[in-house]
Amino acid sequence: MTASVFSSPVLGQLFGDEEIGSYFLAAADIEAMVAFEVALAEAQADAGLIEASHLQAIQARAAGFTPDLAALSAGTARDGVVVPSLLKQLRAGLPEDAATALHKGATSQDVIDASLAMRMQGVSLVLDRRLAAITDAFTRWNLEAGDTKVMAHTRMQAAKETRFSRKLASWGDPLVRCRLRRETIAPRAFALRIGGAVGDRAGLGNEADRIVDGVASRLGLTAVPAAMHSERDGLVELADWFSLITGALGKFGQDAALALQSEVGELQLSGGGGSSAMPHKNNPVGAEILVTLARFNATLVSGMHHALVHENERSGAAWSLEWMLLPQMAMAAGAATRTGLDLLDKLSLAAPQRRG
Amino acid sequence: MTASVFSSPVLGQLFGDEEIGSYFLAAADIEAMVAFEVALAEAQADAGLIEASHLQAIQARAAGFTPDLAALSAGTARDGVVVPSLLKQLRAGLPEDAATALHKGATSQDVIDASLAMRMQGVSLVLDRRLAAITDAFTRWNLEAGDTKVMAHTRMQAAKETRFSRKLASWGDPLVRCRLRRETIAPRAFALRIGGAVGDRAGLGNEADRIVDGVASRLGLTAVPAAMHSERDGLVELADWFSLITGALGKFGQDAALALQSEVGELQLSGGGGSSAMPHKNNPVGAEILVTLARFNATLVSGMHHALVHENERSGAAWSLEWMLLPQMAMAAGAATRTGLDLLDKLSLAAPQRRG
Amino acid sequence: MTASVFSSPVLGQLFGDEEIGSYFLAAADIEAMVAFEVALAEAQADAGLIEASHLQAIQARAAGFTPDLAALSAGTARDGVVVPSLLKQLRAGLPEDAATALHKGATSQDVIDASLAMRMQGVSLVLDRRLAAITDAFTRWNLEAGDTKVMAHTRMQAAKETRFSRKLASWGDPLVRCRLRRETIAPRAFALRIGGAVGDRAGLGNEADRIVDGVASRLGLTAVPAAMHSERDGLVELADWFSLITGALGKFGQDAALALQSEVGELQLSGGGGSSAMPHKNNPVGAEILVTLARFNATLVSGMHHALVHENERSGAAWSLEWMLLPQMAMAAGAATRTGLDLLDKLSLAAPQRRG
Amino acid sequence: MTASVFSSPVLGQLFGDEEIGSYFLAAADIEAMVAFEVALAEAQADAGLIEASHLQAIQARAAGFTPDLAALSAGTARDGVVVPSLLKQLRAGLPEDAATALHKGATSQDVIDASLAMRMQGVSLVLDRRLAAITDAFTRWNLEAGDTKVMAHTRMQAAKETRFSRKLASWGDPLVRCRLRRETIAPRAFALRIGGAVGDRAGLGNEADRIVDGVASRLGLTAVPAAMHSERDGLVELADWFSLITGALGKFGQDAALALQSEVGELQLSGGGGSSAMPHKNNPVGAEILVTLARFNATLVSGMHHALVHENERSGAAWSLEWMLLPQMAMAAGAATRTGLDLLDKLSLAAPQRRG
Repeated sequence: MTASVFSSPVLGQLFGDEEIGSYFLAAADIEAMVAFEVALAEAQADAGLIEASHLQAIQARAAGFTPDLAALSAGTARDGVVVPSLLKQLRAGLPEDAATALHKGATSQDVIDASLAMRMQGVSLVLDRRLAAITDAFTRWNLEAGDTKVMAHTRMQAAKETRFSRKLASWGDPLVRCRLRRETIAPRAFALRIGGAVGDRAGLGNEADRIVDGVASRLGLTAVPAAMHSERDGLVELADWFSLITGALGKFGQDAALALQSEVGELQLSGGGGSSAMPHKNNPVGAEILVTLARFNATLVSGMHHALVHENERSGAAWSLEWMLLPQMAMAAGAATRTGLDLLDKLSLAAPQRRG
Repeated sequence: MTASVFSSPVLGQLFGDEEIGSYFLAAADIEAMVAFEVALAEAQADAGLIEASHLQAIQARAAGFTPDLAALSAGTARDGVVVPSLLKQLRAGLPEDAATALHKGATSQDVIDASLAMRMQGVSLVLDRRLAAITDAFTRWNLEAGDTKVMAHTRMQAAKETRFSRKLASWGDPLVRCRLRRETIAPRAFALRIGGAVGDRAGLGNEADRIVDGVASRLGLTAVPAAMHSERDGLVELADWFSLITGALGKFGQDAALALQSEVGELQLSGGGGSSAMPHKNNPVGAEILVTLARFNATLVSGMHHALVHENERSGAAWSLEWMLLPQMAMAAGAATRTGLDLLDKLSLAAPQRRG
Repeated sequence: MTASVFSSPVLGQLFGDEEIGSYFLAAADIEAMVAFEVALAEAQADAGLIEASHLQAIQARAAGFTPDLAALSAGTARDGVVVPSLLKQLRAGLPEDAATALHKGATSQDVIDASLAMRMQGVSLVLDRRLAAITDAFTRWNLEAGDTKVMAHTRMQAAKETRFSRKLASWGDPLVRCRLRRETIAPRAFALRIGGAVGDRAGLGNEADRIVDGVASRLGLTAVPAAMHSERDGLVELADWFSLITGALGKFGQDAALALQSEVGELQLSGGGGSSAMPHKNNPVGAEILVTLARFNATLVSGMHHALVHENERSGAAWSLEWMLLPQMAMAAGAATRTGLDLLDKLSLAAPQRRG
Repeated sequence: MTASVFSSPVLGQLFGDEEIGSYFLAAADIEAMVAFEVALAEAQADAGLIEASHLQAIQARAAGFTPDLAALSAGTARDGVVVPSLLKQLRAGLPEDAATALHKGATSQDVIDASLAMRMQGVSLVLDRRLAAITDAFTRWNLEAGDTKVMAHTRMQAAKETRFSRKLASWGDPLVRCRLRRETIAPRAFALRIGGAVGDRAGLGNEADRIVDGVASRLGLTAVPAAMHSERDGLVELADWFSLITGALGKFGQDAALALQSEVGELQLSGGGGSSAMPHKNNPVGAEILVTLARFNATLVSGMHHALVHENERSGAAWSLEWMLLPQMAMAAGAATRTGLDLLDKLSLAAPQRRG
């Protein structure tokens, strides 16, 4: 059952992205949450907060853990978060004192936010690699054809001739900046937020900072202050980043669709889409989808900004809204980079370019 | 692979809705598209546009049809729409002249828009039934407790006492209006848009209107003019309707969450959500999710309004954007009605209500 | 001081609308609020709730009233609403018992919502008149040129020839539907919400319904139940309506811009915009602005849907958000209808239309 | 005539901001545009592109220039941009050859974007100063009262006691990060985009880079490549920044409103808003307005992301959309910082804080 184009059996290849999608499988989420609990136990054992034997029991339990998804789902429907049910399942295979040591001083949000940060970091690296491939492709095209004269259009009117390199720059340069931006937002977007029950780490004792640092280094995340539980700006920056990627590629798609118009013919497309009624058509499907994905993320980014109004120490309402939006924005960025690369393969400058 | 809370194995019971979701299964979509092709053939046979024997072949083919999903998916990725591939599969089991009679004078958009309208009409009837159940529950509550004095709050401050019925009215009345609105928007939201290749029904011959009426009556939809292919206001009204439902229930959820605050205690909740760190908590998960769903649809509705800028006779970009948004808005309306009903079961007025 | 394009001394003729703008002058707002207070006093005198002599004093005071804007502004900054300050000024010129009779049983929201409804109704009638003029212009154009063959474009590609009337229908028909929609939403959008302090009319006594009806008939509004203070769906429908208008005109603008492209030349434009660098250009400024206004309203409509989450009996936060958005949406609809009419004057079909 | 709360004679003190507003006066815009033309002439004279005597004529003309606003407005309505009319007025007071030297190689967008960047940089510095004042106020409050125990609330329920410093951190830390973010986005947000007619600086000759650098250093902006005319990510980052500011302050406002609830009373407020019907009320107007402003910018930011789909070398439609949104977002950030400071002055912890 799905209402999402990303995972539809029919639309999934058009809108989806298998590689990015793998980060949003339930299994990937659970694996990351379990990894968090193990890393927490390890850091707590290092700090002397839990016993080494309890740690070993937790590690062994995690290694052999197979979740009962139906029970997790039922628990989530009741609790609003999966963690109480997940812990119940993990603890069911642990001796009682090790069960107490598990998740010590932590709270559901610690776990869920950590899993999200881990997976989003992975997503960002996939996107970064693809952005590099796309900007490389623009660079190659520039070497081949950058000096060709093409017509510039301003306000939807033919304006003056310019070099094709000017267009290539406006398509590729924003993506270069997106790559740099990833590094800027990383410490806040891929942050380890451990706050405990109310975002003050009261349950972690005097070694709280050391423990958090230990978890962060194990999970490859950046440790941030406890109170950041309820400060969501780092995730909004990530949403902005996804939308800047889709927006830049949406401009490329829009320009490609305009240049591919039958009457313009500045670019040509191999392998466009067919029509059920007009066999002669060669539809610029990829170019259009890039526009669609840009408008999709431009729409959803608004909800992420609304989620900044995160009331008190934890807002179920605002936090859950992030879950509904941010993964989809990542998927759209994935689809856009995948589609952008594919479109670049299929596009070429039509000859001759000197038209009246 | 999914990035959608609606179909997540873990979050699906919290955010999803099995009954509404059934309308968005690939199978339901394909079934509706095939039903369209059959209805079209029937209406065309009635009008003498295709032969009776071809109709029978098409009916038989449809009755026994099992789609090859992988091929549909690959075709959709290429064409941007599923219909060319679907027709190829349907025609593969037809004699050549019946294959030509199939989809005669029609285009992909005719098929896809019809399937959407059919399924959205079904969704709207499910929602309507639930809205009736919710407004009934408010009415019952009013009979039981409407005269109880409760504190009214304006601008987040206790204001004056009022009767509980005033609150119940502000929760229930907007949902009554949503039921009435469904009837108003139905002719445009559940419209049969048949336009053929470019939205002028050129391929349907002189009997175009009769054929379209015949298809509409078979599918339970309202026939509209050919050019409405590129006029999307009926679907935007439907999106607005979904958001008016979630918005009204979001106000109820927000009010419930405020009245359930530990310090306020005007309402009490049975069976709230548990916490991994604070066993004493009874979290108003349903109330919060209602707020989340309201903000989700309030966010997505914007994209549907952007899709009104549907360029020329068919916009791949704007049309595809609808596919990304409208089903999700329906799902959120489904989840909100389901959650609203459940919350109403769990809520009661705390006693005593006369507080200083 | 302004940050708004609608009232900018430089941009105001491009984006603004003097006729619609007149409804959003401070003077128009104050006049409507004073009219509400007079109508309330009249209806209350009819019902015997206040004395005839007090009514006369109130009528006389209102007739001669000149507001002290600086004091209103300072009071609004403190109270969040203008009404307490406005009443103070009105009462300053009244005998003490007439001063008490003024605004009897009413609250700030009664006044502000009534003024908004009165002015929005006026705005809607202006827009309705212009929509009629635009649809008339499309009809005339159809009579002149509807049979001309033009190229239809689907998915940004030339598709097949069709009659120009098909395009005219897709531009004009949605506006006809907008006119019909105005009548549907009127009872809720132009509603008189009188609820008193907490939305239960407790201060209006046993004659509450009669009084409200009396005020409604005097102000030309529709009386609605008291609790509708906190039910904002009628205003959201109005916002949706503004956006449906700008969206339909945005599609027209987008199509016109595409048809006016130098390489397409299906339409021609007289009196387009000039350029500071390229004197040969004839920019389709009006067509572009129609797209801009459509996207503007498609953006803002989202905030109106968020404002449905109106907590408790009155939400300062959600209510104020409406003030920031709805007048602008009305202005954009005004600018779009004005610009649409102007563009229709300047556009014509280029000859010959039979191109390869 | 205004439809904007920011400049309303009645609502202006509640929503507006005189200091930020001064950057959006028509006079400020024109002054910045004229400064651009002078700086361009100076840099071109340095590079030998125009004659020294022409520069002197241009400088003299600029120094004594008084714009004819009515003519600018009429020209803008025709051209979609003010620059052709502005140049006409400037040139009217120049000898013919100096008139030709003015705006040499430049285009309207060069001028308008430069003026926007100059003024937005000024706005950002005002906001930065205020953010410093707010974070200072939080720091002072922390020194005074950070150790006080207060109740933490998660999911709208009392959770556990925590130190007040935890709340102060979640209010103040995001604003510290906003200050740092300003420095990160400055090179792209406060960029000098000079591209000439079609974004390739063809009209600036071989000394194009030197000229652009000269203009940039004179105007205090960062020079960026020519093609950035049509790359709008720097402005979207600025919009995101405005919304991150209002979002962080919106969370503070929401928390303050919740803590000020009559039943909670964790904070107390001096000088709240009065009511026309309930004299006992002390409404948390400032706290609510902070929420309103957050949701306003969270709504508008979406439109800025849509404007990334900036077709071809200059999009009238997407560019004009920025003008409708970005100044308002700056105003909202101004109002939020002003209101936040004021609210901090009026708030204090209620005593005693140890409640059950």
